Amino acid sequence: MRIAVVAPSCTLKREAADAVEAIVATRGDCELVIHPQCFLSDGHFAGSDEARLSALREVMADQSVDAVWFARGGYGSNRIAEAALADLPQAAGAKLYLGYSDAGFLLAGLHKAGLEVAWGPMPQDALRQGGEAAVTRALDWLVRRDLSALEQGLDGPAMAFNLTVLSNLLGTPLEPDFTGVDLLIEDVGEHLYRIDRSMFHVTASPAVRMVRRLRLGRVSDILPNDPDFCGDEASIVEQWCARSGIAFGGRANIGHDARNRVVPFPRGNR
Amino acid sequence: MRIAVVAPSCTLKREAADAVEAIVATRGDCELVIHPQCFLSDGHFAGSDEARLSALREVMADQSVDAVWFARGGYGSNRIAEAALADLPQAAGAKLYLGYSDAGFLLAGLHKAGLEVAWGPMPQDALRQGGEAAVTRALDWLVRRDLSALEQGLDGPAMAFNLTVLSNLLGTPLEPDFTGVDLLIEDVGEHLYRIDRSMFHVTASPAVRMVRRLRLGRVSDILPNDPDFCGDEASIVEQWCARSGIAFGGRANIGHDARNRVVPFPRGNR
Repeated sequence: MRIAVVAPSCTLKREAADAVEAIVATRGDCELVIHPQCFLSDGHFAGSDEARLSALREVMADQSVDAVWFARGGYGSNRIAEAALADLPQAAGAKLYLGYSDAGFLLAGLHKAGLEVAWGPMPQDALRQGGEAAVTRALDWLVRRDLSALEQGLDGPAMAFNLTVLSNLLGTPLEPDFTGVDLLIEDVGEHLYRIDRSMFHVTASPAVRMVRRLRLGRVSDILPNDPDFCGDEASIVEQWCARSGIAFGGRANIGHDARNRVVPFPRGNR
Repeated sequence: MRIAVVAPSCTLKREAADAVEAIVATRGDCELVIHPQCFLSDGHFAGSDEARLSALREVMADQSVDAVWFARGGYGSNRIAEAALADLPQAAGAKLYLGYSDAGFLLAGLHKAGLEVAWGPMPQDALRQGGEAAVTRALDWLVRRDLSALEQGLDGPAMAFNLTVLSNLLGTPLEPDFTGVDLLIEDVGEHLYRIDRSMFHVTASPAVRMVRRLRLGRVSDILPNDPDFCGDEASIVEQWCARSGIAFGGRANIGHDARNRVVPFPRGNR
């Protein structure tokens, strides 16, 4: 089992890479190839658009690679996602792609292209408190599709997205088909008024209204609202579900933290 | 000329109301009716959704009101916009609606419903440095469609939006027809990576790609990006225009400041 790590968004911290390599060495059930592009830095990004795209395309086309693991989120995968999906090499279809947060732009597009993708922890999570468990969970899924890594409320086709990322991919060529899926959302570092506004936007989408249910993960590091917003993320999400006729399926065990679990997207047709 | 002020988003400051009333008293060419709803407070909003909707519907249906002036932005007009547009009373069609920022949700929906709307300064702007000029500019447009209040680069049908508001209304029932218009955008209080992400989202929209040109107003109070984003708002906007095939029409004289000018939307059909 050969797992390639690339960084389509921001630069991977060297300490995180070291920690993940130590975990992999202990396990002994897989080989990790951290692409040098992960450590590039070009302004906000882990290298220029060209460098990030080139590394991603390289591992997608590599027949010796069984899985592509996105190094971390941040921002930037949307800038290369469409180009990454053009003229897919045959080898790209025989891999699993794993990540979350900003990598959701790629998960959406890769899923739409018929590839196997899953939401789940990333190498940079090694630096979180309890991060070893998150990394181990991701590897358990990557190496042996260990069901204990899954979000435990899954009982049918599902997708997971950062709410703000989801809002920003609607109407773009990356927008997947949400029909009949449980849509799990989470967010981090937003004001509640922004959560409310994103929920307005997302639940107004006729495509999103095709979901079976919407489930709410954790919304962490909420920025102070002045004045106080009144209400919390759960009341906001429940209200927009009620207003839009989307069934609310309760809370979900995903978020920007070490407890974040794996949510495999339904496998489409190529 | 009777101008009604309502607050579909956040609470109007009493000092702003006083300052605007003093300006109106000096002019003597119009009557200002500041609805008491403007001073309500319910969490983030100028009263509950019901209170804000009720005040807006009241002035829209009032035959003695010639113009509806949105008190200020903030957040919240999207929560009542669809309901405000339902079963429009006859009198709603004989008025001008003026505002900007968060009020863009309403401008979009009212325009789509065939009403006369314009982007321009609001009563709360009285509190800005140089705010008297902004308020006077708005009143000059409201009272006598004074052409000197206009954004001076307009040479055809145009619309103006806060970029983040625009991103959040795409795909909703409020989305207007952008075909052939100059689309002016501005923003305030965002990180450059968010400006980049919003530009990705907005320029990916097939509806937005129908514009004649996109012009960039001021992007103010940019939040620090860590690491430095590299580039500025102009290079970001020009790049996404180039990537999406949208003509970039240069800078525009709008923004969250006292220099903000009036941009009347094209008058549609009811």
